[in-house]
Amino acid sequence: MSSGKVTLLSAGPGDVDLLTLRAARVLACADVVLLDDLANPEIATLAPSARVLRVGKRGGCRSTPQAFIERLMVRYARRGLHVVRVKGGDALMFGRAGEELAALRDAGIATAIVNGVSSAFAAANALGISLTHRAHCQGVTFVTAHLQDHREPDWSALAATRTTLAIYMGMSRLDALCAALGDALGPHTPGAVVQHAGGANERSVVARLDRLADAAHAAGLGSPAIILVGPAIAEARNASARPEATLARAA
Amino acid sequence: MSSGKVTLLSAGPGDVDLLTLRAARVLACADVVLLDDLANPEIATLAPSARVLRVGKRGGCRSTPQAFIERLMVRYARRGLHVVRVKGGDALMFGRAGEELAALRDAGIATAIVNGVSSAFAAANALGISLTHRAHCQGVTFVTAHLQDHREPDWSALAATRTTLAIYMGMSRLDALCAALGDALGPHTPGAVVQHAGGANERSVVARLDRLADAAHAAGLGSPAIILVGPAIAEARNASARPEATLARAA
Repeated sequence: MSSGKVTLLSAGPGDVDLLTLRAARVLACADVVLLDDLANPEIATLAPSARVLRVGKRGGCRSTPQAFIERLMVRYARRGLHVVRVKGGDALMFGRAGEELAALRDAGIATAIVNGVSSAFAAANALGISLTHRAHCQGVTFVTAHLQDHREPDWSALAATRTTLAIYMGMSRLDALCAALGDALGPHTPGAVVQHAGGANERSVVARLDRLADAAHAAGLGSPAIILVGPAIAEARNASARPEATLARAA
Repeated sequence: MSSGKVTLLSAGPGDVDLLTLRAARVLACADVVLLDDLANPEIATLAPSARVLRVGKRGGCRSTPQAFIERLMVRYARRGLHVVRVKGGDALMFGRAGEELAALRDAGIATAIVNGVSSAFAAANALGISLTHRAHCQGVTFVTAHLQDHREPDWSALAATRTTLAIYMGMSRLDALCAALGDALGPHTPGAVVQHAGGANERSVVARLDRLADAAHAAGLGSPAIILVGPAIAEARNASARPEATLARAA
């Protein structure tokens, strides 16, 4: 039996101080840190005694295969080391945590998970809005625009929920998804794109659905970004007019 | 002009070490802390120089009216104080942040927001699963079972998204919502109830939809709890069998 283990640890969005106190404590005693592309590389400073390996898997780019990452975690844990696998946002949403946890269990490796802030919450913060203003909606739906089988999500079914939609990994399909959601929800429905949510280089645009893709392209926004759609985003107009718009960052 | 301000600050779910590093820093220099019922009262220890006021608003109980809380924030901020309004989970989901931000802007008070971990992520952690295992679903929908106008959420529309459903504030309607979702998704669909997600007294049950309410009642589970429903929850069965099931806590 090995005394090593693997912790799936959430980096949160952007700034290092969006990690939890628990995440900082776990990193401080990590032996090996596997760092995702979407996680802030400054996180390595919180793990001074760890060997830090970059294992980015950003869509479309040259990247480390999933199976190799899983083998790496198992190998180090079997040497008795504490491996910390750092993932952007919260580790339990859109990060293949399900597959990694299954692989680790199959290998008999002890696992732990440390939660974090998912990027869509930081995107709402950038706009100064609630994701679920109860005058506008009953909740929020987090979806990825990239499905496992390369199909599109069922935008009309998502629109029918009357929840705010928070779309991850959607920038390469921004025009098509704005058109599909405009058909389902109406072209005047408000939307927003927030790039680098929660980071020092955060930028955003707010526009109705029939203008959102053009506005985002004109502003030069690209991945990684969160796309928010729904009546609750209308509150952001007031938000952009408030004089203290930059305070959330400085708090 | 006042130099005071109000920060809406996310307490996260349960344990104090699930707050972010930024939240801890902001609390350390708070003058006044307004503490929600759903936030861990130990948070007050992070704000040693602040006057701490409990302003619980738990459903059905005697509680502080929303308008009074908003007046309190404005009054202290106008005295030049830094008011920190602490909310359970993430402040930008299901916490009336939208109304509070609007009231503060109307009053000309500077505002900031500090994000946090929402309870459903801690609930997934308790079960050792991803909320969005890509073999099972394309995302996750967070809804409250208590709508502003006292209607039920449209369970069939939510079921049609094929996302994992994470239901907040649903325990008083558990039997009815399990029946409605069982009709829409099939009675064998897996579900779970996690009480006190992320806290030291966390407890959970996993069962198919036609047995979930009975199982939760038999286990004595009540509010506050997260109800999770969808094929992705099936992964939790393996989770409950893993020998390291308690490690996530001790990480």
